[in-house]
This record gives sequence, C-alpha cells and structure tokens, in this order.
Amino acid sequence: MTSLSAPSKPVPPPSRGFPVEEFEARTAAAQDLMSAAGMDALLLTTEPEVRYFTGFQTLFWLSPTRPWFVVVPSSGKPVAVIPSIGESLMGTTWIDDVRVWSSPNPSDDGVSLLVETIAELVDAGGTVGVPMGPETHIRMPANDFEIVRERLEQQRSMAFLDATNIVSGLRMVKSENEIAKIAHVCGIVSGAFENIGSLLSVGDTEQEAFAKFRIDILQRGADDVPYLVGSTGPGGFDDIIKSPTERIIGEGDLLLFDTGSVYDGYFSDFDRNYAFGSADDAAKRAYDVVWRSTEAGLAAVRPGATTSDLWAAMMAVLEEGGSLGNNVGRMGHGLGMQVTEWPSNTQSDNTVLQEGMVLTLEPGLSWAPGKMMVHEENLVVRADGPQMLSRRAAPELPIL
Amino acid sequence: MTSLSAPSKPVPPPSRGFPVEEFEARTAAAQDLMSAAGMDALLLTTEPEVRYFTGFQTLFWLSPTRPWFVVVPSSGKPVAVIPSIGESLMGTTWIDDVRVWSSPNPSDDGVSLLVETIAELVDAGGTVGVPMGPETHIRMPANDFEIVRERLEQQRSMAFLDATNIVSGLRMVKSENEIAKIAHVCGIVSGAFENIGSLLSVGDTEQEAFAKFRIDILQRGADDVPYLVGSTGPGGFDDIIKSPTERIIGEGDLLLFDTGSVYDGYFSDFDRNYAFGSADDAAKRAYDVVWRSTEAGLAAVRPGATTSDLWAAMMAVLEEGGSLGNNVGRMGHGLGMQVTEWPSNTQSDNTVLQEGMVLTLEPGLSWAPGKMMVHEENLVVRADGPQMLSRRAAPELPIL
Repeated sequence: MTSLSAPSKPVPPPSRGFPVEEFEARTAAAQDLMSAAGMDALLLTTEPEVRYFTGFQTLFWLSPTRPWFVVVPSSGKPVAVIPSIGESLMGTTWIDDVRVWSSPNPSDDGVSLLVETIAELVDAGGTVGVPMGPETHIRMPANDFEIVRERLEQQRSMAFLDATNIVSGLRMVKSENEIAKIAHVCGIVSGAFENIGSLLSVGDTEQEAFAKFRIDILQRGADDVPYLVGSTGPGGFDDIIKSPTERIIGEGDLLLFDTGSVYDGYFSDFDRNYAFGSADDAAKRAYDVVWRSTEAGLAAVRPGATTSDLWAAMMAVLEEGGSLGNNVGRMGHGLGMQVTEWPSNTQSDNTVLQEGMVLTLEPGLSWAPGKMMVHEENLVVRADGPQMLSRRAAPELPIL
Repeated sequence: MTSLSAPSKPVPPPSRGFPVEEFEARTAAAQDLMSAAGMDALLLTTEPEVRYFTGFQTLFWLSPTRPWFVVVPSSGKPVAVIPSIGESLMGTTWIDDVRVWSSPNPSDDGVSLLVETIAELVDAGGTVGVPMGPETHIRMPANDFEIVRERLEQQRSMAFLDATNIVSGLRMVKSENEIAKIAHVCGIVSGAFENIGSLLSVGDTEQEAFAKFRIDILQRGADDVPYLVGSTGPGGFDDIIKSPTERIIGEGDLLLFDTGSVYDGYFSDFDRNYAFGSADDAAKRAYDVVWRSTEAGLAAVRPGATTSDLWAAMMAVLEEGGSLGNNVGRMGHGLGMQVTEWPSNTQSDNTVLQEGMVLTLEPGLSWAPGKMMVHEENLVVRADGPQMLSRRAAPELPIL
C-alpha cells in the first residue's frame, strides 16, 4: 500500500464557505478557458454550476418550479439572474450584480431578463457556452431555453457552444478547501461504518437499519445524508441501488450500505459490506477479490495515469477472480459537489489524473448468478499517489 | 373554520408502493389525454415522471451521470429504456419491457436505443410528447436530446410536442393511496413541530437546531428530510430559503423552520414560526395577520374555486394587515412526489381546484423592512372543502 491513510480520529470540522479569493480564482480560470475556446460568456442553470461560481447554497433547488441562471462574462464577476425569492441570499455571496424577477411567471419566467442580460454582456455576433454534454442537463423548461437561444441567435447573431469541458475541467480538480470538506464528511461516515456492529442486528427490517444508520451519521456531524442505498439478502443480492424494504434481516445475510453524505455542500460516496452472524466461503472469497481489486486501483493512482489505467488495474484482479461481468458500467468516478461527477473510471474514458482530483474507486463483481459485490473508497490524487479520504475497508468480510 | 382537522395522534404508516391497478389507471388516463391531444407517445426523463408511470423508486437519481427514459405508448404498458445498473430494480416493478444499455457511454448514452424504441412504438409521421413547459426540464444532455429529436424528425418524420399539461394534469389530482402517504408524513412533521420546545433552546447554533430537528423527524418515522430551510434573527429575518449558519440563537429571536420531509416518495411541505423567550407586539401582530390570511385561504378551498381565488382570499387579509409586498412570487402550490408541484397560487394561475388535489397555502408578509413572515399548511381538496393534512399552526405566535 503506497497510499496515505485517512485520519483515524475525528478532526475539527473545516470552516464553512470559501474565501472570496477562491471564487475569484474559479472565475478567472473559467475565463481563461473560455477565451481559449472562443467563448464570450457561460450560461449556467444547475445547482452545482451556480454554487461553484457564486457560493449560493440552498436546498431550495429541490423545488422544480423556478429556473435560476448565472452568466459568467469574459471578464469581471459572474452575474446572477434569479427569482426574487433568492435575492436576499444571493446578496450574501461575493456576487455584486443580482438581477431578479418575480417567479413563477409562466408567461415569462426570467426569459426576457436573461436575454437582456446576455445581450448586455456579450457583443452581437458573440458566443455563449452552455454545458450540453455528458453528465449535464439544462435545468429550465426546454421551451424557454429554445426562446432564449432563438432570440440571441436571431436578434444578436450569437452562437451557442457546448461548454461541458470548461465546467468539468475546472470542477474535476479540487482546491484544498474543497478537499477538506470532503475529507471531513468521509471521516464522519468512516466512523459510522466502523460502529455499525453496535447499531444493527438480526431482526431489524431494512427500513429500520437504514434509519438507524442515517441518524447515526447525522449525530456524528454530517449536514445531511441525501444518498443511502443498499441491499440485504441471504448470502448476497443483485441490486446495489435499492431503497430499503420491510424485509427482516436474518442470520447469514449479507448487507451493503452505500452512502453519499454531505458536509457544507460536499459529498462522501463510499460503501461497506458486512455479513450477519456468518458468511460462506464464496462470499468471503468475493469480498477478498473486490478488496484486492481496490488495492490494485489504489496502486495505480498517480498524476499522469488515466482513469482507464485505474479501470484496467481493478479489472485484472476481478477477471482473475472469476468475474461474471457487471452492470454498473464503470468502476468509480469523480466526487465533490455532487455524489458523482466527471470523470468515470471506464475502459475508454482516458481522463488524465491530476493532483487534487477527488475520485472514488468502485470495483464490482458478479461472483455468482444474482450475486453482486461492490466496494468503494474515496481518495484524492497527490503528487506521490493516492491519499485516502475514506478509512480503508477491512481486508476481510466483517461479520456482525 | 370549515376544514376537517388532521388526526392529532400518530396513525399506522400506510403500506408502501401502489397496487398494479394504480399504475394501470395512471397509464390509461395518460393515454386518453394523449389521444385527445394527438400524441402517439410520451417521452419522460425525470425522476418523478419515471416513478409516476413505473413505480421505480431509488435515490440513485442523485447521480447526474446516467440518463433514464420511459416511453408511454398510445396503448399498452410503458417501456423503460435505462442503464443496466437499474435493470434489477426496474424488474421488480409492473413494467415488462425493460431495455438496457451499459452506461456511462458518452459516445452513445442510450441515444440509439431510445431512438430505436420510439421508432418501434410510434408509426412514421407520428408525434412524441415531451414535457417542455413550466416547472419541467429535460434530464439528459441537451446535445443528446437534439440528436434523438433530429433522428426521429428526419428519419421518421415525427414531430415533438409539449406534453407538460398531460403530465401536470394527471399528477395534480392525487389518488387516496397518494394522499395517505402525504398525510402520514404531514402527521410525523406536525408532531415534531409540536414538540420543538423540548428540542431547541437559546444558545443552540442554527446548525445544531437544524440537526436536532432533522434527527427528530427521522426518529418519528420519516424516510428522509431532503428539504429543511429556515432562519433565526433578533425580532425577525428576511430570508426564508437559507441554510443554517453558526449563528447562536438568542433570547428574543424569531425562528422559522420549513421542511419537506418524505414518506415512501411523497412529501410534506409546511413551516412553523416561533419566538425564543419573548416577542414584541409587531411580531405577534404579523403572526396573527398571516395566520388569519391562511384561514381566509382555507375558507376559499372547494372544488370549482381556482388557485387565484385562494390567492385573492389570502392577499386581502395581508393587504388589510399592512403588507409591504413579498418576494416569494406565490402563496402556495401543489405537493406530492416533489416538494413543490403544479399548480401555483398566484394572481393569474387560475387552475380550477378538483377533489383530490393536494395543496399548500403559503401566505407571506413583509411586515417591516427586512422582516418576512411566512406560514404554510398542507391540505387536500375534498367535495365539501379542505381536509387538513398538516395539523393547524397555533393561532398565536408560540413562545419557546
């Protein structure tokens, strides 16, 4: 093991938010990339995109009613074009130019204000970048986006370009402030996993087990546990994205919990596997294969290696261990403001690892028909290899 | 008060999921509306849309990586076109035709499979409905949607239509099974609000107060508390969508908590206001005005009235109470699979209330510069008026 270990004891929570310098740096870096790509502005519509450039953080995004926009011009601070309900909160960020309208207003839900703002920030004939590629979507009514686009194209001779690479390229590499938040929540969840034996027992329903684990993570200091999926089953299971059921956990069951928990808007995302009472040799062997696959992935992490190198290193161990293939489609991914972010550890992804990238390694093994085993760890890429953010899973299947 | 009260004691949780007949009824109703609108298929991409027609329920949607599709043909069951990681879980629903691809695959992330599926289900020259209007978005990369649309338009002479009204029209009116889930989580949250005095105290930070309240709701049986915003402030505050800070709650503070909690995929969404230790007369008066505004809204609820009637009834009391206007943009909304759904209680919305609609009433008052007060209740429209789902807020500002 070349990797640095995650701290084994709780450390004080990192401070919330970011210094203004961090938003300035993000914006300047975006503007450099925009300039290189011939892009005069970025139009952003999703929660992480808006938060990345402004620091605007609220659960209010859960409501699908209102669209929110941020425009990053070629120089100067981003401009917020948002419903008036967000004016006070946006006013607490580093953004100066906050333009609001009363929403919901189906007849013009920010469309005119957005067109006007872009027309003011971008010369006629200019270009507007919008993330339109992998792992993105445009969070506004498609009809309204069409109107914005047509008006700017027809009245201002503008062109719309795909800005996915600009946003993903920036967000993939984390600052030390971002890493500290992810490390903190990973530490909290590691503690919860290590204590799970005192929390769960045979006779719990899946729903009871999930509830106890979620509450334990909150009591340890996570802000929220938005993602908690898992499975139980006699000797194993085949579904790794399931919500809990009324099924009663029995002696000999395997248990998987996979959680994305949050501190100050940054996610952990890793899982753990356990057996209740006993496990058969096939399950123990599957655990060992996936654990060693993770080790192989960790050993391959260094700046300059690629996500596909990680995939190959993990896959070699799985194939040697008798993998029947799996349906997950990748073996880990980026992690940060969202529970999954670019890049993906796949055979063909080929993203070059850089210092400061936060990744999950997530090998999955179909070890028998209808039996899946997935391990997951979180790390940050450092100059000399991986630094663990999650505390490494036990090398042998833990029996509760 | 003509409204029926919500139960004051915990009742057993309603059973999870829905009988197959409910999905059959939803699909048949959609197909009737599609037929009337000249639509040969619906293409759906978001979590609530997919869940509404299939019952597919997982937190995995939190990951933005993979697109998920459901196509509702003009007759027969919906067809799922999804990443293979979801095959096992979708196999547990009433859906028979589940087509999968290995995702993520940026070079063709379900695009060909989706085009092929629609081309098989819809004759050349037919029409495909996609929700593209208010409160919707298309949850897939915009580039990929463009490819799907162009291929079907150019190779199959199909036309794309806006299906917002079909989906919103169906989802606005809840079944008794849906209402039971919302009523259950409203009861849980009502209990938590009524107990808040024993939970919070002067000296707590906002973050501690939020954490205690979230954990209490979970311990009372909610599946999750995805939405919890609020504010504290000496004598009031102006921001009602804020995340908690390190601010320490002091004597004389007002507190607002607004939560969307979940049971079996259905939300509550209501708030409560409190004062710590004491409150001045202006705050008490503001509370009284907003409480009476809610009463006026409740008195206006009946099938055949409109959302704009509710708005007018609530606004009359606010204006008489000296409202300085507010920035929320509406005074309540639909509620169900999402924390906010169609319709909106606005001056111009004019949606006609029908039996089975679940609504929030949410009058908001700017009662002094920089001072906002919002009340919210949840109800279902019944033949003879509103039936409360939340237990009605106390008529006078509660002092903790």
